[in-house]
Amino acid sequence: PVVLSKAEVAAAAAASTTAAAPPDYSYKTFYAEQPLDHFSWRNSSVTYRQRYLVADQFWRKPDGPVFFYTGNEGPIDLFANNTGFMWDIAPEYGALLVFGEHRYYGDSKPFGNDTFKDPKTSGRLAWLTSEQALADYARLLPAVREQMGVADTAAVVAFGGSYGGMLSAWFRIRYPWVVDGSIAASAPVLQFTGLAPPTVYSAVLSRTWRAGSADGACGDGIQRSWDVMKAMSLTDLTSTFSLCEPLKAVEDLYNWVNGAIQYMAMADYPYPASFLGPMPAWPVKYVCSSFKPNAAPKDLLASIRGVANTFYNYSGQAGKCFSVAASGPSTLQDPGGWNYQACTEMVMPIGQYGPPNDVLWPMPWDLKAYLDGCNTTYGVMPRPDWIPTSYGGDDLSAASNIVFSNGDLDPWSGGGVVTNVSSTVQAIIIDQGAHHLDLRHANPADPPSVVTARNFHKAHIDEWIAQRALAVAAAKRAAGRIGAEL
Amino acid sequence: PVVLSKAEVAAAAAASTTAAAPPDYSYKTFYAEQPLDHFSWRNSSVTYRQRYLVADQFWRKPDGPVFFYTGNEGPIDLFANNTGFMWDIAPEYGALLVFGEHRYYGDSKPFGNDTFKDPKTSGRLAWLTSEQALADYARLLPAVREQMGVADTAAVVAFGGSYGGMLSAWFRIRYPWVVDGSIAASAPVLQFTGLAPPTVYSAVLSRTWRAGSADGACGDGIQRSWDVMKAMSLTDLTSTFSLCEPLKAVEDLYNWVNGAIQYMAMADYPYPASFLGPMPAWPVKYVCSSFKPNAAPKDLLASIRGVANTFYNYSGQAGKCFSVAASGPSTLQDPGGWNYQACTEMVMPIGQYGPPNDVLWPMPWDLKAYLDGCNTTYGVMPRPDWIPTSYGGDDLSAASNIVFSNGDLDPWSGGGVVTNVSSTVQAIIIDQGAHHLDLRHANPADPPSVVTARNFHKAHIDEWIAQRALAVAAAKRAAGRIGAEL
Repeated sequence: PVVLSKAEVAAAAAASTTAAAPPDYSYKTFYAEQPLDHFSWRNSSVTYRQRYLVADQFWRKPDGPVFFYTGNEGPIDLFANNTGFMWDIAPEYGALLVFGEHRYYGDSKPFGNDTFKDPKTSGRLAWLTSEQALADYARLLPAVREQMGVADTAAVVAFGGSYGGMLSAWFRIRYPWVVDGSIAASAPVLQFTGLAPPTVYSAVLSRTWRAGSADGACGDGIQRSWDVMKAMSLTDLTSTFSLCEPLKAVEDLYNWVNGAIQYMAMADYPYPASFLGPMPAWPVKYVCSSFKPNAAPKDLLASIRGVANTFYNYSGQAGKCFSVAASGPSTLQDPGGWNYQACTEMVMPIGQYGPPNDVLWPMPWDLKAYLDGCNTTYGVMPRPDWIPTSYGGDDLSAASNIVFSNGDLDPWSGGGVVTNVSSTVQAIIIDQGAHHLDLRHANPADPPSVVTARNFHKAHIDEWIAQRALAVAAAKRAAGRIGAEL
Repeated sequence: PVVLSKAEVAAAAAASTTAAAPPDYSYKTFYAEQPLDHFSWRNSSVTYRQRYLVADQFWRKPDGPVFFYTGNEGPIDLFANNTGFMWDIAPEYGALLVFGEHRYYGDSKPFGNDTFKDPKTSGRLAWLTSEQALADYARLLPAVREQMGVADTAAVVAFGGSYGGMLSAWFRIRYPWVVDGSIAASAPVLQFTGLAPPTVYSAVLSRTWRAGSADGACGDGIQRSWDVMKAMSLTDLTSTFSLCEPLKAVEDLYNWVNGAIQYMAMADYPYPASFLGPMPAWPVKYVCSSFKPNAAPKDLLASIRGVANTFYNYSGQAGKCFSVAASGPSTLQDPGGWNYQACTEMVMPIGQYGPPNDVLWPMPWDLKAYLDGCNTTYGVMPRPDWIPTSYGGDDLSAASNIVFSNGDLDPWSGGGVVTNVSSTVQAIIIDQGAHHLDLRHANPADPPSVVTARNFHKAHIDEWIAQRALAVAAAKRAAGRIGAEL
């Protein structure tokens, strides 16, 4: 039942058009010359071109605020087109929208097509770090202020989701003089060594799937499915799952199915969306409906196949058969970039432990194996302690003007900031919310919780904008004292 | 009159012993393995050994605070021995004293004796930056906490003077989760492009010299001296100033005399000290006393010679003649390190403009010439905008827990923070204070203003220590919520 006919796909797509018409999503594309390495002087003259997008059709020049998206691991136009919240509220704020592309992604590859060639030996990926990316943004914004003629009194508000949400929070933590406040959506800033436990991601993931059907059959079925698959021959699995190539190991199938399970929980939006690949409304419930309590192995496998088929082939994008090699969303492109980051500073301890923690097969977090794997693949030794050292870990008491939002359906919420840190570092939970649902275009199918979250964001943005104007006025009064003789 | 006999030197030295006996200045020396490059993964396995000093004889283990000196451009023992304030107050705080050496200085040279060889072509200096040094400190402190068994509730307070004061302030700005508060003494964090004007350093310097004698003859005399020197033959100048080698250009003599003028204003302490070379009490007044109004050129030159002689030869350290090649204090050693920093990120716009701004010969700040010079010497192009971008420039409104102190005799005060930024970023001025006088050992000759400043520091340190204990208790209560399922 989950292999949709073309008519069903069209109907699902039509359903999404009942949403309010989106505003004008057009933008201009620019490039900024950036040092490849902000932090050393080896080859200090080497630069690269960073892409950024500017939409000024809503801007109240010169003193409307700047809304800046801190680009993450994908082409920046993907994030521009999937951060409808910025576009939705731009008119009422008279905001200038700017989307900065993360170095090494999209059209901001320092070495062009050679960037990811021979990653272990080329040394070209060495400057793909969050620190370098934030330094790019810190240099970009003053340049954009000048380019567009933005008034000093105009605030900059950062937005970002997922890794982009981490960057948005870290941007405010690291460069508060460049950005006045940050909306950090679904940012698992605590999913690092010594902070959130490696169990929590899979636990939240599993809660979402266990709640996917009222009778619990969906979570139970997924939990049972691993043994059912293992009991079958690789040949039978190859045909059951319509794989293009003969399956070489059951773990390859596990990982491929698991990719669907993870991304469908992240993208469990209340309407059809294509951000992490095309999916129907509430994709988890959509595929869970076929799971029956104590289903026979054959029926259970059909349901699991439905999970994979919906994630990998909802719009027929897979063609006639599946390849288990690609287990994530194609929209992000360049998985090599993120894999390298995950093997250097972005070491996020996540394990699978089986029941009762989760519905997956056991595969506990193993730091040593992880480090060895990174060393083998990229010839680097990750520094798991560095991110907490560099950005503060769970001690955000000196930070200010950040809203952390998390959806309770989203497995990443387990590594998020979910309680208020202070009067200016605030957390909000979105009931029935998936991965940064709040950053998406408003939709009639939105749960009330996300409407509340967006209003919460706006209240804080209002505050940051007012603060900036006051602070600049005070600074102007004080400026005469700089460099004065005592 | 300013060439002291050995007896006079002994008498001056004896005068300084009337101060309260200093506490036990002994410490143990350790080394920490640090990544050479914290911010890229090129050669990510290369490390170097950072020296640090630990004095635990006053420590109330495990919950006494950590007092941490953010080492600057010299061997760390020099700063340990010249930051008596930390030693003076350690007993009453039960503090653990830690002094971190700045990479590329003292015994923390990544490439040993080769470090400064062929600086233009070797590429070895590339990682000599404030960012890398702060990352060293950020990694060092958690390691020291573990090594010594420091309680979580124990605060870390950073201390630093001059560039070390900048580092101390920037350390709190950049890593507030590592350091709870900072005493930033005589830290010219505003002496960067677009902030304090290039006139102010020389203006404050000249005010100090103009006040050196009640009749103003000292400032006037220095002001006149440049033309007097220029009117003489190089041969006559060589013999008048007892130079070892024939003078090649009058500018070489200018710079050498100017070195004395600058460092004596910085080190215009109320008692004999040897921090920036051995000098008598109140060295500016000491040498100014020989200047007479409208002195004949010969007498004026004798007075100027006295200025140089006191700075370069107060304890007879110069031997029988002077070399104009060395125009700064020998105690800092390694001028190549600082010169490289000044030619990369630490571009501090300082010019000389002649009267009425200052008593020096005109040599206005010329950014282009400066950049070209750096490129010629080191093959690098400085990035003058980077420091304000990286550390906030004059927008410190999001910072907290920093005290900026400045002495009004100190030419660097013109680039310092001299007015309060907020309730937690505070400024204090030390009347009759030279370069970070407040960080020195208490002395009966201290002006009351520096006693006040030290009490001001202590009041803030008390506050930071109490804050830390409260915050850690609150964090412990909150820790159970990290990684909890929503």
